[in-house]
Amino acid sequence: MKTWDTVAIVGVGLIGGSIGLALRERKLAREVVGIGRRPGPLRIALRRGAVTRTTTDLAAGVAEADFVVICTPVESIAGHVRAAAEASRTATLITDAGSTKGPIVADLDRILANGQDSPYPRFVGSHPMAGSEKNGPQHARGDLFEGCVTIVTPTDHSNAKACQAVSQFWRKLGARVLRMTPQEHDQAMAAISHLPHVVAAALAAVTPAESLPLAAGGWRDTTRIAGGDAILWRQILSQNRWNVLQALDQFLEELSAYRRALTYDDGDQLEKLLERGRAIRARCKANG
Amino acid sequence: MKTWDTVAIVGVGLIGGSIGLALRERKLAREVVGIGRRPGPLRIALRRGAVTRTTTDLAAGVAEADFVVICTPVESIAGHVRAAAEASRTATLITDAGSTKGPIVADLDRILANGQDSPYPRFVGSHPMAGSEKNGPQHARGDLFEGCVTIVTPTDHSNAKACQAVSQFWRKLGARVLRMTPQEHDQAMAAISHLPHVVAAALAAVTPAESLPLAAGGWRDTTRIAGGDAILWRQILSQNRWNVLQALDQFLEELSAYRRALTYDDGDQLEKLLERGRAIRARCKANG
Repeated sequence: MKTWDTVAIVGVGLIGGSIGLALRERKLAREVVGIGRRPGPLRIALRRGAVTRTTTDLAAGVAEADFVVICTPVESIAGHVRAAAEASRTATLITDAGSTKGPIVADLDRILANGQDSPYPRFVGSHPMAGSEKNGPQHARGDLFEGCVTIVTPTDHSNAKACQAVSQFWRKLGARVLRMTPQEHDQAMAAISHLPHVVAAALAAVTPAESLPLAAGGWRDTTRIAGGDAILWRQILSQNRWNVLQALDQFLEELSAYRRALTYDDGDQLEKLLERGRAIRARCKANG
Repeated sequence: MKTWDTVAIVGVGLIGGSIGLALRERKLAREVVGIGRRPGPLRIALRRGAVTRTTTDLAAGVAEADFVVICTPVESIAGHVRAAAEASRTATLITDAGSTKGPIVADLDRILANGQDSPYPRFVGSHPMAGSEKNGPQHARGDLFEGCVTIVTPTDHSNAKACQAVSQFWRKLGARVLRMTPQEHDQAMAAISHLPHVVAAALAAVTPAESLPLAAGGWRDTTRIAGGDAILWRQILSQNRWNVLQALDQFLEELSAYRRALTYDDGDQLEKLLERGRAIRARCKANG
């Protein structure tokens, strides 16, 4: 017996495509409907076996779904969740895979959270912390969520059963699920994901072209995520800009300390600063 | 026939140990003498087959060598080159593997560069751009220099034959050799290696401890090199501090542009900034 009869995925890029592949490889759904605006990615997702059928009509695509996952760019998510809620059965559960949660959940909470006792708790937000600088269903992988931390972000209005069902969805795909409020999520992401993206992109941007042939592992690692899609990241940064600004200001303060230590050739202070970074990085060593 | 009879390696850490392993695996030297202050790393280098004998006496270790490579922390290199030059035969060629070149070469140029016509051109500096956040001979690898860019930094006083011989040494280890002046080298390294180290360490340092369990691939990549030894890096940054400061100031300017774009929620500008970083990073995509 399949866990779900029909899962609809709105947006079949890297994340949507990987969800489809994982559902199909793990035989978790009878039907996986791929929904998108452009036929190209839909065709790739179908050919790769990530979905069993495709449509460019969101309302038609979600009509029969038990479970809908919105995997579109963050600025489109709230609109797509609303459209999916209108076009699907009242029992259909909806989640998303967006990298920001505050504005999306705030937008939907009053409309779609029917309270603790509602039998129809339409929407709970999530964020699988997978993905990379590569985009599109051609890079999708059925094992993308294995061991991947996925944050589920219920609010005071969310239904406990809905939250469990959404958590279960990600766990079946191999993810480790954590619960946070949308605000906690966005603050943590500013430090652990959004600021690093800004830093990587800024570092790449100021590298003189003539030095690029000398780029070794260090530069490549440090700038890797700068390869991410600029439009997707503009939306993420914009949605989470106050938290990103706060994280950026702490980072700028740390760089000012380096600047002072370098200016005055203060070796002790330089070593102290470097050691502080090394010690924090070392805590994550076990997993690379 | 071996390319060299005896190669002496002063400092058998990751780089020195890897040079030894490469020489031995490729059968390029009959004897490889490992020289160091502490017996521990020497024992490991010997056990791993990176060297054929070891000594803590630099003068004794280099006495019979045709070729000496100084692989100690950058602040010690000039002193070790001088000591090696004094204790070795006049025909012995000396190079180093330091991450900075300006101060080291300036320190040695007047003493050891015997001019274009000298039969005894003792020293030419080099920098194999290999290595990682891991240190010590236990991490040494015989293939560390395969495909690795190595910069050889002759000056106006260097002898062409010496420069060829040093370049040949690295090529035999599998490296791609480029020539630059020590000044060009240090300026390029500030952008491509030293600033990235500062950035990675500062980013790691400002990450709140409670967010670390959420660290995914992006944070890990961006901060990886922060795991490097703080004392080694203090020396590198200090030796190259004017170039690093200049690169840091350009980076700070780029971050200020992000700060403004975030503050005013200027999506177009944010996208332009992100795209600038993405485009430069994309030039290096082919090699990861």
